[in-house]
Amino acid sequence: MAISTLPHNHLYLQALRGETVSRPPVWMMRQAGRFLPEFRALRDRYDFFTRCQTPELAAEITMMPIRRFPLDAAILFSDILVVPQAMGMDFEMRDGVGPWLEHPVRSASRVSEIEIPVVEESLGYVAKAIDHTLELLENRIPLIGFAGSPWTILCYCVEGKGSKSFDLAKKFCFTESDAAHQLLQKITDTTISYLKMKARHGVSAVQIFDSWGGMLSPEDYQEFSWKYIQQIILALQEIVPVVVFGKGCWYALPKMATSGAAAVGVDWTVSPEFARQSVGKEVCLQGNFDPARLHSRPEDIQKMVQEMIRRFGKDRYIVNLGHGILPNIPVENAEAFVQAVVEWEE
Amino acid sequence: MAISTLPHNHLYLQALRGETVSRPPVWMMRQAGRFLPEFRALRDRYDFFTRCQTPELAAEITMMPIRRFPLDAAILFSDILVVPQAMGMDFEMRDGVGPWLEHPVRSASRVSEIEIPVVEESLGYVAKAIDHTLELLENRIPLIGFAGSPWTILCYCVEGKGSKSFDLAKKFCFTESDAAHQLLQKITDTTISYLKMKARHGVSAVQIFDSWGGMLSPEDYQEFSWKYIQQIILALQEIVPVVVFGKGCWYALPKMATSGAAAVGVDWTVSPEFARQSVGKEVCLQGNFDPARLHSRPEDIQKMVQEMIRRFGKDRYIVNLGHGILPNIPVENAEAFVQAVVEWEE
Repeated sequence: MAISTLPHNHLYLQALRGETVSRPPVWMMRQAGRFLPEFRALRDRYDFFTRCQTPELAAEITMMPIRRFPLDAAILFSDILVVPQAMGMDFEMRDGVGPWLEHPVRSASRVSEIEIPVVEESLGYVAKAIDHTLELLENRIPLIGFAGSPWTILCYCVEGKGSKSFDLAKKFCFTESDAAHQLLQKITDTTISYLKMKARHGVSAVQIFDSWGGMLSPEDYQEFSWKYIQQIILALQEIVPVVVFGKGCWYALPKMATSGAAAVGVDWTVSPEFARQSVGKEVCLQGNFDPARLHSRPEDIQKMVQEMIRRFGKDRYIVNLGHGILPNIPVENAEAFVQAVVEWEE
Repeated sequence: MAISTLPHNHLYLQALRGETVSRPPVWMMRQAGRFLPEFRALRDRYDFFTRCQTPELAAEITMMPIRRFPLDAAILFSDILVVPQAMGMDFEMRDGVGPWLEHPVRSASRVSEIEIPVVEESLGYVAKAIDHTLELLENRIPLIGFAGSPWTILCYCVEGKGSKSFDLAKKFCFTESDAAHQLLQKITDTTISYLKMKARHGVSAVQIFDSWGGMLSPEDYQEFSWKYIQQIILALQEIVPVVVFGKGCWYALPKMATSGAAAVGVDWTVSPEFARQSVGKEVCLQGNFDPARLHSRPEDIQKMVQEMIRRFGKDRYIVNLGHGILPNIPVENAEAFVQAVVEWEE
């Protein structure tokens, strides 16, 4: 297990542990992605899931932003939908549509047929991608693994594609509650095995993305999302630090803070002060630059990042965006974001 | 002006004024809409904007939910995009796409060409629809008029269609800030004239829908959305009560509370306790049943509505959904929602 050997730059892990740091660490959600011209060049040659499923490609894509910017963590290139794929749901990535499932899961009988896979087999390619990436990283910075929250995965399984409000997914939960819980539990069990495998292969932390948690009321969030995220945290926290990020989940921050998660990610609607007040003094926070604000001029980005660090404070804080980086962000603007942190002085 | 004659049932206006009521009033956002079979029948004969622009049709659609359910307020059938239409932007409603603008507004020169219309001419059909509706309502319940927030209108003008995150609209604001402010001010000026005209024709209250305010950080919300909503409230508040609703704008509730608005609407992510704490004791609240929760069984809806009233309290509270009613909600479920309020007893 590579986890016992600390990387040369372990600012990210120090922040997770609440240690005093010279400056906060920085990485960007979806940094291994579409805003990089070298990624788009690869995309023309291999389709989306081929890139996820080919360890050499996934490792190479993971390294792309690391070679360009002085980032303090790498995040494995993959997709949250590899988990339901491994469970037998044949997600495709369609041009101009995004994730697509030809036969969405909308009945109790369909849910009951879903089997929990042996992740070492069906998701072995992810373990291999981690092995490859760690070789390329040469222990310079930590590698983060991730998974979608069970609720967010359910959203795609039921809806069959992206959606503004995932009303079909919600309808399924509210009308076929038992089946929904059965599906959520199957996704949870698979995700726990999956993240444990990632930890065994040497990721330094795992992040859970609850991208669509904020579609739910606080009560429904507790029932259909949080309950399952909490299971994952409890199963993983002794093995590897867990970071939990819920977009639009401002109301659940106090719960996240006492969950055993090492850090809590917030989106850009949450002020640093509200975030800190919600999670208390001890928990590490991560976020929350509006990804669309990377359209601003580099000099303005720099000022906004400095102000963000001033408000969050340098310790127990990981600089990040409030959601994934957008495809049309100029590379120099992303660079300005990272540089503003690296050059930060109290 | 019909406004001086109180309707027979003025629970809604009593709640807005903070008076003690026997039970809270109830209406549903988008109640004059697609979940009603009689609306769908009309839809097959007239396209969307024909329905908005034909006073008899708009009045008839406004009355549809009133004839079915014991609602405490009617809301004029219309669309927030009639305002940019009147400003020369030729929005269409496309099947399977929604709002569509062939040539989105994405340059300063295009913004400078936009003229503020004489609303009595270009939106005279709305005034006529109000006149017709008031005749049909026979003063039984109040009629609400509405407009989109300038930011929400800008989102559609720049994006040219609906979007999950309105990144193009945000990019325009962040890179062409002067032009964006010019456009927002033009929309604001038009909206003020438009809502004043509605008040002159006898609506009892106006509601501002900031459907996409929650896409912005608190700072950007202040700059690109709230500043303009505040202008509208200040221009209208002495003439007619103003209700402000911002989806995802939980962080702006304290500002809304001291704006001069008679009521503040909240979505379902905001707990009644958080909402009350944010706005203080005096301001009327409106909301916030998750529209997707109307998929639950009628008996469960009834229980959830009772619990919601218990938590919000019966006074200074208007029962509503947290956003518009969904097209596929069974009529009997909407009925259960309304009946639960009408039959409510302390």
